[in-house]
Amino acid sequence: MRGDRVYLDWNATAPLRPEARQAMLEAMDVVGNPSCVHTEGRAAKACVERARAQISQLLACEPSDLVFTSGATEGAALALSSFSTIYGSAAEHDAVAAWVQDPSQMLDIGPDGVLTGTCGGQPFSQTVREGVIAFQAANSETGILQPTLQFAQEIWSLERNVLILVDAVQALGKTDFDVPRSGADLLLASAHKLGGPKGVGTLYVKPGVALEPKIKGGGQEMGRRSGTENVIGIAGFGAAAEAAARDLADGVWERVAKLRNILEISLDAAAKDIIFVGNKADRLPNTSCFAVPGWKSETQVMQMDLAGFAISAGSACSSGKVKASRVLKAMGFDDRTAASAVRVSLGPTTTEEEVLRFADAWIAAYRRHKKRAGEAA
Amino acid sequence: MRGDRVYLDWNATAPLRPEARQAMLEAMDVVGNPSCVHTEGRAAKACVERARAQISQLLACEPSDLVFTSGATEGAALALSSFSTIYGSAAEHDAVAAWVQDPSQMLDIGPDGVLTGTCGGQPFSQTVREGVIAFQAANSETGILQPTLQFAQEIWSLERNVLILVDAVQALGKTDFDVPRSGADLLLASAHKLGGPKGVGTLYVKPGVALEPKIKGGGQEMGRRSGTENVIGIAGFGAAAEAAARDLADGVWERVAKLRNILEISLDAAAKDIIFVGNKADRLPNTSCFAVPGWKSETQVMQMDLAGFAISAGSACSSGKVKASRVLKAMGFDDRTAASAVRVSLGPTTTEEEVLRFADAWIAAYRRHKKRAGEAA
Repeated sequence: MRGDRVYLDWNATAPLRPEARQAMLEAMDVVGNPSCVHTEGRAAKACVERARAQISQLLACEPSDLVFTSGATEGAALALSSFSTIYGSAAEHDAVAAWVQDPSQMLDIGPDGVLTGTCGGQPFSQTVREGVIAFQAANSETGILQPTLQFAQEIWSLERNVLILVDAVQALGKTDFDVPRSGADLLLASAHKLGGPKGVGTLYVKPGVALEPKIKGGGQEMGRRSGTENVIGIAGFGAAAEAAARDLADGVWERVAKLRNILEISLDAAAKDIIFVGNKADRLPNTSCFAVPGWKSETQVMQMDLAGFAISAGSACSSGKVKASRVLKAMGFDDRTAASAVRVSLGPTTTEEEVLRFADAWIAAYRRHKKRAGEAA
Repeated sequence: MRGDRVYLDWNATAPLRPEARQAMLEAMDVVGNPSCVHTEGRAAKACVERARAQISQLLACEPSDLVFTSGATEGAALALSSFSTIYGSAAEHDAVAAWVQDPSQMLDIGPDGVLTGTCGGQPFSQTVREGVIAFQAANSETGILQPTLQFAQEIWSLERNVLILVDAVQALGKTDFDVPRSGADLLLASAHKLGGPKGVGTLYVKPGVALEPKIKGGGQEMGRRSGTENVIGIAGFGAAAEAAARDLADGVWERVAKLRNILEISLDAAAKDIIFVGNKADRLPNTSCFAVPGWKSETQVMQMDLAGFAISAGSACSSGKVKASRVLKAMGFDDRTAASAVRVSLGPTTTEEEVLRFADAWIAAYRRHKKRAGEAA
């Protein structure tokens, strides 16, 4: 990242934490294959297991409950591809949404972005019968939090054969959140959202839950996911998880929330038609999603990029495509607003000066947009 | 690795090449998500595409033919899990063998370790009708090479609906080998066998071959394999592939073959009952597999480990299990011999001094073994 750039897209991916970098450098010197019984192999195995312990601390689970994957997308495939009945909302990330096939199994979300506890307008008790139900702990685009434990308790009370999958990718490390407080039987986590490397994740599997392995072979990860482990990446994930836990304990995200609020107050004061999405709901401390109807997301992202700021379209990243956010549409926003949303997401190293610079640049661009459109700013 | 250790287990995993380390360090500073359209995202995308180009050079294919995976084991699952008919030999790696279910679809191998061109004793023309046939370019335990192109040509001549999968994991980078010379429709490669990081690989998919994606979501890898890319690992893979190509051009493996031959001559002179496996067949230049019937593989591996040398049981690594090699059993060796095989595998940085030190240590252990067994050495 060039020194003059301001990175405000932490929900897409967080910069590598120094602790993760250091652990990865050390793992580069660990030459063995973790499956080998000799000294070098055992050292590599120890590297993987140290990381597993670090991550289990953050998640408040047993290390053996964690299956290392190449990321949350693989975790979702491992967790979901064996099931034919999967309930989830329109706000799910693509990695989960790809497995929710039946429109009658779509969970409703309200205008505030929170699950309504219904599926196709009917309560869970009348609709959720088997398979897996997915709850997203925090939405990547809006930051809106779901009370996953509360919904899990409702599912438990039904006493049906339904597993609860919690997508914790965005919540983990940014909020006080762990396996016991999630209600999860299965939980998705990703290293790179909390300052580890991209391409590593873990799937928490509650003891007693049997999943059919999808990647078969050498029997690594206790037979649940074969393949030589990504030792360097896993080491980085472990160190990042430990650092993320420390940040949480130190109240770092309260400072980040203050910066986010400063940002929103600045923009709100300057743009009378700005709509903040989800700011009435419980949200991640670092995320601001806002729209100026008619000022297209991709135009804003490109203008801000040219001005030196990395932000995302509300519809987030997927292979460079930018389209109207289905998350916002599910919340009841019209197409024009949903296609005009952008997301600014901050991180522990974001400074007030960066936030204010961004606000200035965005407001200047907003005024130019209004002028072009022949409207008063 | 401690300075006094000698690492002779390159087929299990190769030490990280300096070029890979450097590329990974640089990629650590690339902060973006490759799916994002802003400057940081495009820089991350460029990092992935640079590596794809480097690897396609080594493989002599188009960059767009390559799907990045978390390793060859995932590549095998992506290539094979949609097919119900999969032909393969008993010498396949577990990652491929896991998908060969029907004993009537097992390809025969001869006493020299090479495919006989038959399946259950019948020629391919009478047995191979549909699905996928797997050919292993080089065996990890014995180093034995298969003439995959010759067998591919035989399959082509049958004009049947059969795809050819080549497991190139061990051959790639150690021999003059690429996609055109393999006959592959699908080809498995792994970064860590040629000096890249563990946990990254690629699946070559011939244009026109459609595979059902297994990891679904954001649509990365042109929809063939979703999930945020392992940018740092992929960068290391690319640099390692480029360095491996240079080593090949420089004749580095001819020097390695000389060291392997020195090793075998030394051991052969000292141990009258040693059996070298596959030394009559075309082999990888770096691999020596040998057995002293009755002196168990795991005992040898442990004794050599204590003496400072990392080698493997003939049955290679899989989650620490050591059992009689099914590869050797398929070649006709009895259980006692198959359970006594070890593999020594060298690499570009292995020195003659290391090889001679190993030979001395092994011969000393061999003599102790003979003494304990009450046999003449």
